[in-house]
Amino acid sequence: MYPLRKPRAPRQAQSLERIFQPVRQELEEVDSRLKALAAGAPPAYREMLGYVLDSRGKRLRPAIALLASKFYPLTTDRPITMAMAVELLHLASLIHDDTVDNSSLRRGLATASSLWGRDVAVLLGDYVFSLSATFVCDTGNMYVIRRLSETIRDLSQGELLELLAAFRWDQTYEQYQERIYYKTASLFRTAAEAGAVLSEAPEATVHALADYGYHLGMAFQLVDDILDFQATEEEVGKPVGNDLLQGTLTLPALLLVQSYPNDNPVIRLCRGEEREANRKRAVEVILNSTILRDSYAVAEQFCEKARAALQGLPPVPAHQSLLDLVGHVTARRR
Amino acid sequence: MYPLRKPRAPRQAQSLERIFQPVRQELEEVDSRLKALAAGAPPAYREMLGYVLDSRGKRLRPAIALLASKFYPLTTDRPITMAMAVELLHLASLIHDDTVDNSSLRRGLATASSLWGRDVAVLLGDYVFSLSATFVCDTGNMYVIRRLSETIRDLSQGELLELLAAFRWDQTYEQYQERIYYKTASLFRTAAEAGAVLSEAPEATVHALADYGYHLGMAFQLVDDILDFQATEEEVGKPVGNDLLQGTLTLPALLLVQSYPNDNPVIRLCRGEEREANRKRAVEVILNSTILRDSYAVAEQFCEKARAALQGLPPVPAHQSLLDLVGHVTARRR
Repeated sequence: MYPLRKPRAPRQAQSLERIFQPVRQELEEVDSRLKALAAGAPPAYREMLGYVLDSRGKRLRPAIALLASKFYPLTTDRPITMAMAVELLHLASLIHDDTVDNSSLRRGLATASSLWGRDVAVLLGDYVFSLSATFVCDTGNMYVIRRLSETIRDLSQGELLELLAAFRWDQTYEQYQERIYYKTASLFRTAAEAGAVLSEAPEATVHALADYGYHLGMAFQLVDDILDFQATEEEVGKPVGNDLLQGTLTLPALLLVQSYPNDNPVIRLCRGEEREANRKRAVEVILNSTILRDSYAVAEQFCEKARAALQGLPPVPAHQSLLDLVGHVTARRR
Repeated sequence: MYPLRKPRAPRQAQSLERIFQPVRQELEEVDSRLKALAAGAPPAYREMLGYVLDSRGKRLRPAIALLASKFYPLTTDRPITMAMAVELLHLASLIHDDTVDNSSLRRGLATASSLWGRDVAVLLGDYVFSLSATFVCDTGNMYVIRRLSETIRDLSQGELLELLAAFRWDQTYEQYQERIYYKTASLFRTAAEAGAVLSEAPEATVHALADYGYHLGMAFQLVDDILDFQATEEEVGKPVGNDLLQGTLTLPALLLVQSYPNDNPVIRLCRGEEREANRKRAVEVILNSTILRDSYAVAEQFCEKARAALQGLPPVPAHQSLLDLVGHVTARRR
């Protein structure tokens, strides 16, 4: 009945451009409407908005919302509006996160806080949050409006939990998992769920796509956290193990603590002893152990569940795209 | 037909407690529900939320929403929900404003940013914004949900415009007026309008109450700005003319610039010359001129329009309360 039921195994990662093909036109529309937002903003911060709304991001979250809306035929452009709200929410939280983390670069570009100061960045972030909240109203759908509000809460909660857990080497895997749900997976989930809701998909499909979004988001953040120990300083413009240096303990660091609970470089770093030397030592131990392999295995479990969530959904082109996206997430780098 | 058509002239300011009498019970409900929010929050910031949601504020904005809902009989508690959303929005913006302004005290209490650091305060503010956005969804009314989102935008815009206009002595009265609309009057307006909408008042009443809220909010901020030049350091814990010292040029300062456009202490302060001496000098000139009287006259014009907006509305007890509130705002201190 469903010819695509046995999808192509995602051995070779597809390019995002190819994966996004079924929603290429809508994504371009999202981009051009985001740019138009800056042009229509009050003169005082037209330039700032133009900068932060620029299309250098991967547009992953709006693409997920759009792809999730493609399982049932649709004549409205509500998913485009939702995709904009989702991306604006993501951008707003990045502005605040970079401000809180004192980051000077994001994707190789200067952050808002480094360009215009932290005070302006706080208010600019608020403004972008409010644009997101206003756009989601244009969908006219109470359910997704509420979900987006709850997701704003989740994002701030995730970042706040991260801040409060900084340098706490006694935190559990469950606390880490909760944090990355709030920080990342919640918005992935909302994007997928809202796309499905706005395409008037049956309830089971909405649940399946929400489930997909959740697991994809968890895998995405896990891989992000792993890459922090793998990427070289030249590639990302920050030292290997930078999260650890900032006090953010991710899965690899927690696994290291678990392996040597009494004395290890992560604990010493958290205690404020020779941070730089202990960062180096922690990276060394992590790279020369099974920790990264074990961490990828955890990410892979989430990937499996993301793929499983799609089973039985209609074999539209977006179905294959969402499957390929799972492969893309873990294959970002090994 | 309307026995209260000629309302008592607001010569003697009423106490807020007396003014709020028609909605006393609902206001208590707002307070207890706000407190319950802290108890139900994630453990990590239960204490912080409890602190910022504490009932030391005047609850002016929720009272306006509730009073505006009293012109037509109602059986739902939607105005209470709206009043909570309005107060949460106000509190969230205070948290961010205090963070941006580096204020250590608010109403004599330590600010969130001074207690837990600016980073935590940014995220705590986001969390409170999102609580507001989630609560307004509970009203189930698309119109007020959208208005609240737009008001979040206005508040951040107002504070951002203030930040960008800091030390700009060449700004116009129109720019100042626009800024205080975004910063203050917009939320007063939304509170009054939403209360009316949720009581299912006729369109003309909704417009009248929105109009009332706008003018009351403008008068409120004008008086606040005037008081900054009148209150003594002992009373408010900050120097007289503190706004000016921070670079925030309000009506009295702008009138002073207008009177002596070529050379005066405000301009010298803005140019960075002897800020402390020029603050003192500016306060002295302002207090020994007609500037405060002229500023109060502008505030009084807004008060007149706020009162006029209520003409013809049903003579319920809340009508008199809203009139008395206008008197209270300007009589806060002379």
